[in-house]
Amino acid sequence: MNEKAERLQRIQVTALDEILGETLPVLDDGFVRVIDYMGNDGAVVQAARVSYGAGTKQVSDDRSLIRYLLRNRHTTPFEMCELKLHVRVPMDAWRQWIRHRTASVNETSTRYSIAIDAAQRTPPASWRFQAASNRQGSEGRLDAAAGAELTQQERELQQHARTVYQERLERGVAREQARKDLPLCTYTEAYWKMDLHNLLHFLALRMDSHAQQEIRAYATLIGEQIVARWVPLTWEAFDDYRLGAVGLSRLETAIAAALGGGDRQKALTIARDAGWLKHGKNGLLRNRERDETEAKLTRLNLAIPWRSEPDV
Amino acid sequence: MNEKAERLQRIQVTALDEILGETLPVLDDGFVRVIDYMGNDGAVVQAARVSYGAGTKQVSDDRSLIRYLLRNRHTTPFEMCELKLHVRVPMDAWRQWIRHRTASVNETSTRYSIAIDAAQRTPPASWRFQAASNRQGSEGRLDAAAGAELTQQERELQQHARTVYQERLERGVAREQARKDLPLCTYTEAYWKMDLHNLLHFLALRMDSHAQQEIRAYATLIGEQIVARWVPLTWEAFDDYRLGAVGLSRLETAIAAALGGGDRQKALTIARDAGWLKHGKNGLLRNRERDETEAKLTRLNLAIPWRSEPDV
Amino acid sequence: MNEKAERLQRIQVTALDEILGETLPVLDDGFVRVIDYMGNDGAVVQAARVSYGAGTKQVSDDRSLIRYLLRNRHTTPFEMCELKLHVRVPMDAWRQWIRHRTASVNETSTRYSIAIDAAQRTPPASWRFQAASNRQGSEGRLDAAAGAELTQQERELQQHARTVYQERLERGVAREQARKDLPLCTYTEAYWKMDLHNLLHFLALRMDSHAQQEIRAYATLIGEQIVARWVPLTWEAFDDYRLGAVGLSRLETAIAAALGGGDRQKALTIARDAGWLKHGKNGLLRNRERDETEAKLTRLNLAIPWRSEPDV
Amino acid sequence: MNEKAERLQRIQVTALDEILGETLPVLDDGFVRVIDYMGNDGAVVQAARVSYGAGTKQVSDDRSLIRYLLRNRHTTPFEMCELKLHVRVPMDAWRQWIRHRTASVNETSTRYSIAIDAAQRTPPASWRFQAASNRQGSEGRLDAAAGAELTQQERELQQHARTVYQERLERGVAREQARKDLPLCTYTEAYWKMDLHNLLHFLALRMDSHAQQEIRAYATLIGEQIVARWVPLTWEAFDDYRLGAVGLSRLETAIAAALGGGDRQKALTIARDAGWLKHGKNGLLRNRERDETEAKLTRLNLAIPWRSEPDV
Repeated sequence: MNEKAERLQRIQVTALDEILGETLPVLDDGFVRVIDYMGNDGAVVQAARVSYGAGTKQVSDDRSLIRYLLRNRHTTPFEMCELKLHVRVPMDAWRQWIRHRTASVNETSTRYSIAIDAAQRTPPASWRFQAASNRQGSEGRLDAAAGAELTQQERELQQHARTVYQERLERGVAREQARKDLPLCTYTEAYWKMDLHNLLHFLALRMDSHAQQEIRAYATLIGEQIVARWVPLTWEAFDDYRLGAVGLSRLETAIAAALGGGDRQKALTIARDAGWLKHGKNGLLRNRERDETEAKLTRLNLAIPWRSEPDV
Repeated sequence: MNEKAERLQRIQVTALDEILGETLPVLDDGFVRVIDYMGNDGAVVQAARVSYGAGTKQVSDDRSLIRYLLRNRHTTPFEMCELKLHVRVPMDAWRQWIRHRTASVNETSTRYSIAIDAAQRTPPASWRFQAASNRQGSEGRLDAAAGAELTQQERELQQHARTVYQERLERGVAREQARKDLPLCTYTEAYWKMDLHNLLHFLALRMDSHAQQEIRAYATLIGEQIVARWVPLTWEAFDDYRLGAVGLSRLETAIAAALGGGDRQKALTIARDAGWLKHGKNGLLRNRERDETEAKLTRLNLAIPWRSEPDV
Repeated sequence: MNEKAERLQRIQVTALDEILGETLPVLDDGFVRVIDYMGNDGAVVQAARVSYGAGTKQVSDDRSLIRYLLRNRHTTPFEMCELKLHVRVPMDAWRQWIRHRTASVNETSTRYSIAIDAAQRTPPASWRFQAASNRQGSEGRLDAAAGAELTQQERELQQHARTVYQERLERGVAREQARKDLPLCTYTEAYWKMDLHNLLHFLALRMDSHAQQEIRAYATLIGEQIVARWVPLTWEAFDDYRLGAVGLSRLETAIAAALGGGDRQKALTIARDAGWLKHGKNGLLRNRERDETEAKLTRLNLAIPWRSEPDV
Repeated sequence: MNEKAERLQRIQVTALDEILGETLPVLDDGFVRVIDYMGNDGAVVQAARVSYGAGTKQVSDDRSLIRYLLRNRHTTPFEMCELKLHVRVPMDAWRQWIRHRTASVNETSTRYSIAIDAAQRTPPASWRFQAASNRQGSEGRLDAAAGAELTQQERELQQHARTVYQERLERGVAREQARKDLPLCTYTEAYWKMDLHNLLHFLALRMDSHAQQEIRAYATLIGEQIVARWVPLTWEAFDDYRLGAVGLSRLETAIAAALGGGDRQKALTIARDAGWLKHGKNGLLRNRERDETEAKLTRLNLAIPWRSEPDV
């Protein structure tokens, strides 16, 4: 390897250095700050080339190589980059965040220190309805009057909880016990460090429309304002191959191929054999897998065979 | 390997089968249940013997081999055993628990389901003072009158929080948002699975006297009532080599060796060179490392050289 | 949770118990044996239901739920199952195998024991040519005469290496040093344990047509003969959603949608804007990403727009 | 946290920058090169202070805090630092190295590239005898005449293996298959990245006197020439609390305490109750645990009670 002779310089990313340490606000009182990083797009390429050999250089420019790696899930070169953030997050969003086990984390301890005197607040216009279609999500907003009442209640409850916490501390109760009735949405802070491969996985899950809005706000900021600056070629490939990707199962591929070849009957047969076309009194029985397939066929501009004519 | 010819039977541990699925209570409303396990002491031994070769059998019985492995931190054979628990834990203890990243976890989602209607309650006699000696811990109890007031306050706050949660749900607020002001000590449930090596590490940290009392109650139960039944030889070795162990640093070893050889002056010189014997107006300056050394010397029945005579 | 009252039985999988400990041969002298397991399809479902709540039961049977989980990459419930194998593998295939870092492993140590007296041998008809299209793979076979010569050379080299190893041992050389010139394809043995989620990831990579033939033989056996018996619903879903899946990038989705809607010009414009249609002297310049897209379009029965007419 | 207002600079370690990219030789043809790093001693301290709160600053200087963290196995702050190396290592040492699963690795692929034309060679004076006391290790050297013969044999075998490899390639055999009979000690290269906590664990195991000499040479260089420059306070604490530490089991502590208090009979009773003092025809039966205890008592200058007088 001919790097041996060269005098190495550490990799610097000017675009990221410009926002180093800057407080990027999220939610009403949260933030994300970049503390440090290691590597860049070039470090991904360098690691891939040590694996695949010098010949790689001739056939691929950096951008093509990064796209190739991401497309084919050659993930280890992306592990060569690290990002270290300082974040301030409501504990109930943090409970989701911390499930990503590949991170290194140091969180403020409320055994050692008094809990941060801030809990996430909800403006009157931001109360969300339970989603009807989706058991985990939310959709739409409550009206202004209801929202105002809920916001008032929220303020009173948060004040009540804080008063009790303070009184416990004043009476000498241990911090580790005094905190027990603080609201779940009390803010916490942490240093959080992750490699780029695992960070992209985190972003794919947490920028997704099924993720809870609060953590999605953090993930979107980290992706669009930080990762996009840090590793622009990887970010572009990630956007194309993960965020914008469509995955077809074996069955879906067969249906799409039948439709692509103009054979609607064959597509229907495949769906029928899979048990997707059972009827109840009110038409087709509900089938979550078929619903997802319909969305994909629509995205591919293919007519849904069992919808295109009433009498399947 | 001569097992090839034998008809394999799955490993069963009768002593653990007897409590399979049983609800072992912890705190006021928590529990631990054993759901399944893989392996036993014999599986540890079997894995060690594939590594070290058949000859191991001649020189070591199972107990000696397990002690040897644990003593010398040959940890991989202990990974061959798995324990799967169903637990019910206050979320603030769970926040500590979940930091152990080597577990597999499925926790009840309060996005999908309504939060468990139980928060940990504190009896009047159980309010603990902040530790003076230790910034993170607790020591002693508040008196009965103060405890009764705090318990009454706790009940009111928990009722307030629950009422607000219920009202949000009744107005149609999404579960993922309604939960945000629930108390940190609201109970949650999870399936939690870990291999024996990582479980012992969890127990060493969480059974320790510095661990918070709540999680210590869970860890102690898991260790003494579950692991001790499941892998008795490993548990015995763990008790001897981890729970009951004393670790001496290079410096402490040198001081203890000087004292062991009867050379108190040498011990003092070593401590002085390490900067441990600086005086302020009120005697020796505070030094946390020296404090820990003193405790170890005392445990070894060695006189603390800088304490044994007033004029060091 | 209503399991509390039930008397728990450990999960047993009769179809897997039938082959427990059996030596399933691979390559000329390798094998895979199932030593133990934890969980089954039901354990995946049980873990998912603790997360998503009891309501899940009403809307999904086990098969639909497992398909849903796999399709949407809800991976944690699959971690609740474990498989423990005893394998005998050439060290050069093992070098690829061991890269999967989520396994627990105990490998025979050639520091403690004498190396296994077997190296993988190649029959005359099994020498493979270097792939032309693919820098890492192989394709086609050498002719019989050349194969016979190579096999004879292989035997002599392996004998030479073994003779040197034996002589070193006889002279008293340490086993850890004597082994240093053994062939890479010398067999080794190990206990290898992994959870089902990570096992599926291993299988997806190592059953793939790009994986080296030797490790593919092991992976295929583990998948088709072991996992398929152990967790048949998961295996079926895995086959549909991973092995048989097609992933389309944002760009590919746009091209397929243009073609699906009958707009070949739009598809060409998209490809041209992406830089895929640059010409050299001999037609379209080589472009690996476009090649992969062509294969996918063909699989979907869509005409490749830049191939369908000569003058793009 | 008052860093918010400051303009952050990336952490630089001048002492490490001085050797960045430099080829540090190991063995006859191996090397280690520092490619990049993240963090320093200050980053460890910073992470600890976010956990334990600002108050930490008043009671502890950086050195004391790092010593405290290492002593009490507060490991997460050390994860905030990363080191990335480029290494060239014989594959049989690499087989041990790669067992550390917490690293990120990109190794040269001999499927893509022709194998490095170098295998580790042994000078005549470097052939080691199998250890008598220890089933895995080596001790002493073979005499010059025997060594010269073995070195000559080694050269012939390595040439034979290389010739066969070359011929296979010339006949068009796939690289992935041609390599199968290369010697285990053929050199490979890799990028290898690890956080400081896991790196210290690697060093503790691989700098140990029980580690094989070849990997110990790499570990010692990484520790003494790289880590010592990069994080000098951590290195000093590691040397004191890990490399130089003595761990006493519960039993050993009891024996040492009896001896510390001058009660030899009590020490004997404890040992006898533990089954350590059984006699055979030739005196005390062999007992590995007792042997290790003897070594520790000697290090503490305590007379071994069952050795100090002939008739126990």
